[in-house]
Amino acid sequence: MQRALHLAASPGVPLGPNPRVGCVLLAPDGSIVGEGYHHGAGSPHAEVEALRAAGDLARGTTAVVTLEPCNHTGRTGPCSQALIEAGVTKVVVAQRDPNPIAEGGLEMLAAAGIEVEHGLLLDDARALNPAWTFAHEHGRPFVTWKFATTLDGRSAATDGSSHWVSSPAARRDTHVLRALCDTMLVGTNTVVVDDPQLTVRDADGEPRPHQPLRVVMGERDLPPESRVFDDQAETVQLRTHDPVEALETLYRDHGRHHVFFEGGPKLAAAFLKAGVVDEVLVYVAPLLLGGGKSAVGSLGIRTITKALQFDLVDTLVLLPDSDDADDSAINLRLTLRPTPAKES
Amino acid sequence: MQRALHLAASPGVPLGPNPRVGCVLLAPDGSIVGEGYHHGAGSPHAEVEALRAAGDLARGTTAVVTLEPCNHTGRTGPCSQALIEAGVTKVVVAQRDPNPIAEGGLEMLAAAGIEVEHGLLLDDARALNPAWTFAHEHGRPFVTWKFATTLDGRSAATDGSSHWVSSPAARRDTHVLRALCDTMLVGTNTVVVDDPQLTVRDADGEPRPHQPLRVVMGERDLPPESRVFDDQAETVQLRTHDPVEALETLYRDHGRHHVFFEGGPKLAAAFLKAGVVDEVLVYVAPLLLGGGKSAVGSLGIRTITKALQFDLVDTLVLLPDSDDADDSAINLRLTLRPTPAKES
Ligand SMILES: NC(=O)c1ccc[n+]([C@@H]2O[C@H](COP(=O)([O-])OP(=O)(O)OC[C@H]3O[C@@H](n4cnc5c(N)ncnc54)[C@H](OP(=O)(O)O)[C@@H]3O)[C@@H](O)[C@H]2O)c1
Ligand SMILES: NC(=O)c1ccc[n+]([C@@H]2O[C@H](COP(=O)([O-])OP(=O)(O)OC[C@H]3O[C@@H](n4cnc5c(N)ncnc54)[C@H](OP(=O)(O)O)[C@@H]3O)[C@@H](O)[C@H]2O)c1
Repeated sequence: MQRALHLAASPGVPLGPNPRVGCVLLAPDGSIVGEGYHHGAGSPHAEVEALRAAGDLARGTTAVVTLEPCNHTGRTGPCSQALIEAGVTKVVVAQRDPNPIAEGGLEMLAAAGIEVEHGLLLDDARALNPAWTFAHEHGRPFVTWKFATTLDGRSAATDGSSHWVSSPAARRDTHVLRALCDTMLVGTNTVVVDDPQLTVRDADGEPRPHQPLRVVMGERDLPPESRVFDDQAETVQLRTHDPVEALETLYRDHGRHHVFFEGGPKLAAAFLKAGVVDEVLVYVAPLLLGGGKSAVGSLGIRTITKALQFDLVDTLVLLPDSDDADDSAINLRLTLRPTPAKES
Repeated sequence: MQRALHLAASPGVPLGPNPRVGCVLLAPDGSIVGEGYHHGAGSPHAEVEALRAAGDLARGTTAVVTLEPCNHTGRTGPCSQALIEAGVTKVVVAQRDPNPIAEGGLEMLAAAGIEVEHGLLLDDARALNPAWTFAHEHGRPFVTWKFATTLDGRSAATDGSSHWVSSPAARRDTHVLRALCDTMLVGTNTVVVDDPQLTVRDADGEPRPHQPLRVVMGERDLPPESRVFDDQAETVQLRTHDPVEALETLYRDHGRHHVFFEGGPKLAAAFLKAGVVDEVLVYVAPLLLGGGKSAVGSLGIRTITKALQFDLVDTLVLLPDSDDADDSAINLRLTLRPTPAKES
């Protein structure tokens, strides 16, 4: 299974709608007769690749797979069927498939008389595809909320200016993290006020080949010349105020697993109140404004014991690019997760 | 000089009004014939201790001292005179004495025909007594401003509650840092609203033997039953609104070198505007309030390019005490210094 996990995590697999999966076929003497991993949407599943590599040697082997073999015919045939036809005698799985339309693979294998087992190195397998796993289990995408703030909690000055709240290094870092998500989300007012492009660019400012879906949430009609409507990526407007409904739509109708949510403050407050912020990224700039726009809108909290609590899971110091004389600020990135409610 | 610096930094020297100083007496063959360090106010200066240790062997030696020997008669006689009388033939100094009432030691030695030198390992010598050096050079104490904040820049909730903005570990850390200062400073309104005691306590909550001077700044008469007027430490009220005047008074009339300044927001804004915040300690709690009291009052800044800029010099993760079930939050301590103005 270690080997299968390692294969699944092979570099070069583009982030897409499909999970990363690895598969190893073991002969009765323990030797590996075939292995494979999923190279991304449209290419064969890991099991199929391993079976092809093994050829006739697949008969009588044990298939060790990081994810339950699928039971539906997508762009490739169902893997469970392929394993049965190849004469595999045992299938060991780490993670059962949380995707409602793919599940049932193990039952199908067992019905064909194949010995099945699951749960081996489960945590490692889930960690291969955290957002994908989360989305299928919750019926909505995982939400990473990013905001930039001064030391005193301001995301823009009184006159609305905000460009230099984040250092160039922090902005580059944000683009790297955006690229790991499949969806960008902001409120209508951010589009009206800031006119952001919401694309993912590389270090040279060039757009990356795979762009997340751009989503604007709110009922207002947007200026058609807004940059989110350019041809750099797809864009969807969700005309609702219900964060849960919006996220379920993104999962169900758009197959989205990981939303990179950039605010603004009002929509962020709505997501926080709805309990659908799964991760917070805070870029802290070493600045004081003593006034200006708050990073977070009203949460209706009046007393300190009701404050929303998070666990700090990571801090990263973002050093400036030494070649850029105008860029000397060290920013900080904090990563937080909501503190689980205490059992009582 | 390395040895003299090492002696000066000997553990156990209590923090007091005097600088840490080390002295080594070298015979012409390079061997050490005497050494000493200053053990704190009221005890002999480093040079005197070294001369006593050397006895008659002091004649003809080179005295290596981290600080220019004093030229005034305080609680001990002037060290320059003692070196002359002992027959020392050369004096090598790291830092010249920045204290206007002690300076002139090297001139006096030179006038007595002793060879003098200074500047060796100067930065290390200054770092031995950073606040003391700063205070004498600037005619006012070094100011460390501490504030506690949520992720969204709030130091208290709408109803004023603030107690749990800092974790127990952050509060313990604050007491350790308070103990390194000789002065605690707050505005009158913090005394009226919070009634803090402003003492330094150890990990068990017991007051430490040496307490900083407690200073309250503002014109209002304070309730005489306020806890700052208890018998745990001395207290002074400075009836002025001018931060520079207040600090100069603390240096001149009270011999203060390092102020630990805890706000509130209004007085903090006044100190920031006056440019007399030399170091900022921010305790960041992993909380969101979405409203409440800002950590910093208005600075009159309207646009982002006018934001006060700082350099992040340290970040510290403050882990909770695992024995305390109610204390699970990881807080963060950021240390910042004002960014020096760019030369143009
Ligand atoms: N520092 C940062 O990281 C950061 C990031 C993004 C934006 N910003 C700043 O934030 C400002 C815009 O923020 P904002 O708070 O005014 O606007 P916003 O949060 O971007 O958008 C608010 C709008 O979203 C729609 N909406 C949808 N669902 C909602 C809900 N449940 N509750 C409330 N509104 C909902 C409403 O528009 P409809 O009327 O159309 O329904 C509402 O007016 C800009 O100045 C921008 O610079 C800062
Ligand atoms: N989170 C934290 O780290 C922290 C720390 C401390 C306090 N606090 C909170 O801060 C609140 C109190 O803050 P605050 O801002 O109202 O009061 P403050 O800053 O403690 O005191 C303001 C008062 O200081 C006096 N003052 C002296 N020089 C001044 C100047 N140059 N400019 C303005 N005022 C000057 C004035 O009083 P006179 O009228 O007497 O002249 C003024 O009313 C409390 O609720 C407390 O809980 C938070």
